Amino acid sequence: MNQKEIQKLASQCTRFLIGHPKNRWTAQRILAELADWANPDLMPDMYGQGELIEGFEAEIASLLGKEAAVFMPSGTMCQQIALRIWSERKGINRVAVHPKCHLEIHEHKAYQILHGLHGVLVGSPDCLLTLDDLQRVKEPLAALLLELPQREIGGQLPAWQELKAIIDWASQRKIATHLDGARLWECKPFYQRDYTEIASLFDTVYVSFYKILGGIAGAVLAGPSDVIAEARIWQRRHGGNLVRMYPFVLSAKKGLVERLDRMHDYHQKALEIAAVLESFPQIDVVPNPPHTNMMHVYIRGNRERLEAAALGIARETKIWLFYSLMPSPMANCWKFEWTVGDATLDLTKPEIAALFKTLLNRAGVVGT
Amino acid sequence: MNQKEIQKLASQCTRFLIGHPKNRWTAQRILAELADWANPDLMPDMYGQGELIEGFEAEIASLLGKEAAVFMPSGTMCQQIALRIWSERKGINRVAVHPKCHLEIHEHKAYQILHGLHGVLVGSPDCLLTLDDLQRVKEPLAALLLELPQREIGGQLPAWQELKAIIDWASQRKIATHLDGARLWECKPFYQRDYTEIASLFDTVYVSFYKILGGIAGAVLAGPSDVIAEARIWQRRHGGNLVRMYPFVLSAKKGLVERLDRMHDYHQKALEIAAVLESFPQIDVVPNPPHTNMMHVYIRGNRERLEAAALGIARETKIWLFYSLMPSPMANCWKFEWTVGDATLDLTKPEIAALFKTLLNRAGVVGT
Repeated sequence: MNQKEIQKLASQCTRFLIGHPKNRWTAQRILAELADWANPDLMPDMYGQGELIEGFEAEIASLLGKEAAVFMPSGTMCQQIALRIWSERKGINRVAVHPKCHLEIHEHKAYQILHGLHGVLVGSPDCLLTLDDLQRVKEPLAALLLELPQREIGGQLPAWQELKAIIDWASQRKIATHLDGARLWECKPFYQRDYTEIASLFDTVYVSFYKILGGIAGAVLAGPSDVIAEARIWQRRHGGNLVRMYPFVLSAKKGLVERLDRMHDYHQKALEIAAVLESFPQIDVVPNPPHTNMMHVYIRGNRERLEAAALGIARETKIWLFYSLMPSPMANCWKFEWTVGDATLDLTKPEIAALFKTLLNRAGVVGT
Repeated sequence: MNQKEIQKLASQCTRFLIGHPKNRWTAQRILAELADWANPDLMPDMYGQGELIEGFEAEIASLLGKEAAVFMPSGTMCQQIALRIWSERKGINRVAVHPKCHLEIHEHKAYQILHGLHGVLVGSPDCLLTLDDLQRVKEPLAALLLELPQREIGGQLPAWQELKAIIDWASQRKIATHLDGARLWECKPFYQRDYTEIASLFDTVYVSFYKILGGIAGAVLAGPSDVIAEARIWQRRHGGNLVRMYPFVLSAKKGLVERLDRMHDYHQKALEIAAVLESFPQIDVVPNPPHTNMMHVYIRGNRERLEAAALGIARETKIWLFYSLMPSPMANCWKFEWTVGDATLDLTKPEIAALFKTLLNRAGVVGT
């Protein structure tokens, strides 16, 4: 099957292992739903000004316990800007980041090329950054960026005490702390603390609205008022002070209202799935148990046969498993990222067990 | 009246001198209209990929006679990126710009701070840049940026022969030419040439969709395939490769379909308005006759009384004149920018004459 046929098959499915059913909605359906949901008197924003966007910024600032917040089109923009501001304030152009953070691997090194910042890579690529790792850094740092949970390693989170120790280490050295909270919403079940308390560890926090919350696009940077005021200047420099962002802001607000209370359920489902998958010796889950609603699922076997088996299951059952398998460090072992969303909640433990049994059987990984 | 009362009054008006009625629509109405207009099968884009966004890029590339095009959230992003690419290709970090171009006055010098470019200011702030001005430049240049029409001076356009001579001067020196075409759509009646021919003078062209076309937000950069491919990398660096932009793209496409053919009517109306205003000795129009659907209207008198008179007219007639007057270089002379749109077309010559007669009378500029 070519990509188009695969997309078509996916669109014919009615149930999905991963994410929200809404992730497969048409543009028309999403826009119509958003129009219905909007306050009928709401006027569009204008270059960041307007009731909706300003009110939403205040709402997120309050939720995170920060003085101020600014809505931006992307997290890429939020994070570069936060680090640039901290770098100038500290008079140091070095920032400590994990080797698999978004800035390092997904932004074509913009923090270096646009902002003249130098990344000091801390920790092993496949593990969380630790206090031990930091203690080995011998250079002055303007800021330390932590990602909670860390997506590229399956959504892992440091224990609260380790996290506090890391923050203390930075504070004692007057190193600013910035949180990549692209998936911060998903941390609550693990830490059993509210967002204000988690965010209070950091000087600036970025959060996203189009991942688990299901918004169209958009992000917020929150922090001290003076930092956020300066961030608005950098936002304009980046070309991110858009004339209008209400479709993004509305969908972000709607996502927050509808899904913020579901994080516990998503996490419980992830724990349940990990327990089911544990019964297959050919499958590993990382981290196990999952720290959030996300995990990496490693499967040993032949990639083409596994992918073909997943497509066959989709054709017959209208249940979509995953798009494609990614390589892992081990030969004949492949992985996919499983993010539990509304669609996942709809699948029972026996169904999930049966699906993976069929998958492994058909791919010839285990005998029937 | 405070700003809130002024906004309320504006929202109660039913007719407007400036722009489109749609500019005063609620978010709900715009989103619902967009949902209705969308192809029912259309799926959201994903990081710049998808039928709608890729098709629209191809459509704009073709309309402008360029090999390729990329949709970005803002023109600020498009233009910095185009200049950065030309600068690197030429190995020169200087770019020639007009002192009142957008990069120089509205972007907090991002082209310098983010991209390390140096602006060589060419021409007088209140006039179009000329071949004469350029011939006085004695430094090597990577690129020349021209804005057609030039917004900050009332939408002025150079004569076609002058424009060609400027481009020839640049080409002979292997200086790349970039068009700030934020309002390129409005140039057609003046040049009586199609967009392909106008754009053919330039190596790269930026166009906008939320001004005269009435879209929500968004811009396109068009040019050679290799430049546009590189621009996509810079777009990601800027944080502008958004996960989804379909509300912007849909509204841009809709605006193009609905309004591109109205440019002649808008321009004719601007000529008509300028002729009406000419009969008032207290009013000047710049440029006169208008080159496009835009003009600067200068009024001599007391600013507070003029603004109060405009609000009084709004209250009584439900016709909205302008938001506020801006200072001009002359004492007791104020200006506003008049962009002819769908709302303007609805006002007759006698109505416009009567409105300004009342305005001047009430402000005490002329006796009743």
